[in-house]
Amino acid sequence: MLDLKSLVRTIPDYPKKGILFRDITTLIEDPAGFRESVDRLAGLHRDLGITHVAGIEARGFIFGAGVAIALGVGFIPVRKKGKLPGETIGQNYALEYGVDTIEIHADVIGAGDKVLLVDDLIATGGTAVAAVSLLRRTGAEVSHSGFVIDLFDLGGADKLRATGVKVEALIPFEGH
Amino acid sequence: MLDLKSLVRTIPDYPKKGILFRDITTLIEDPAGFRESVDRLAGLHRDLGITHVAGIEARGFIFGAGVAIALGVGFIPVRKKGKLPGETIGQNYALEYGVDTIEIHADVIGAGDKVLLVDDLIATGGTAVAAVSLLRRTGAEVSHSGFVIDLFDLGGADKLRATGVKVEALIPFEGH
Repeated sequence: MLDLKSLVRTIPDYPKKGILFRDITTLIEDPAGFRESVDRLAGLHRDLGITHVAGIEARGFIFGAGVAIALGVGFIPVRKKGKLPGETIGQNYALEYGVDTIEIHADVIGAGDKVLLVDDLIATGGTAVAAVSLLRRTGAEVSHSGFVIDLFDLGGADKLRATGVKVEALIPFEGH
Repeated sequence: MLDLKSLVRTIPDYPKKGILFRDITTLIEDPAGFRESVDRLAGLHRDLGITHVAGIEARGFIFGAGVAIALGVGFIPVRKKGKLPGETIGQNYALEYGVDTIEIHADVIGAGDKVLLVDDLIATGGTAVAAVSLLRRTGAEVSHSGFVIDLFDLGGADKLRATGVKVEALIPFEGH
């Protein structure tokens, strides 16, 4: 098994002083590292009846697309407001300063579907919790999520678990 | 072979009156359609010594990530300005009204690398031509590109070919 953690680059003081930014671009530039990240996220979610992978814009598209193909299921982009051309439903969530909105197409999934949520990283969990709420409003089941990195001391994984979602993450990192 | 074209939804008058928007979200929601799109783009670029796939934010990440994994090479995100955490190089390109900028990490590729550019769609080709210029500034070779959709009457594919890049596209569509 590859040491995936060693392929993640840490950039100090980005996007602001005191933050250690965990940069997955060095992981996905590595053919074996990218493939193993996707294969391990997919392997953790086989035989669960997953019908769709939902990936969160934009880095979640990179891993989510790979996991969807590996599992042989469809891919749902969870996008920032105003990016999807069809009829959408949206969900607001709080940022450090202000509010943001994510959207999905209103008709993309429904009752009977089982969605796996994928993103590159879980930090405080705000976006992931909002994505689960949004996906569930269609009637679909969302019981599983997979992340490449868990900034475990920021508590997002626990917040997501509290909504009834199982959380898998490949690489634990301190968030600051 | 699947009829990929039938899986693309057309949304009239989006983003503005008179435009027929070709929506790939219905294609990627279809497991067989998504997989075949990626497999065909990868199959067209095997045995060429490709070392990296570069995907353009954001829909290009969805197909580009899949093609990179299928070819067993690394993935380079070509991002909008200000999204990459490391040292970047950027390239401006003209929009209908104004200018936009795309960026890559400065150290990600160099001489000896062979990059395949992937995006969901080529229209007027402005972004693709800018991405090729940007990637070439590292010293890497960029001789191949793959798109799911070619809006052929908008002329982007020819513009890209004029820069010495081979252009493959899976689905031809009229652009308006």
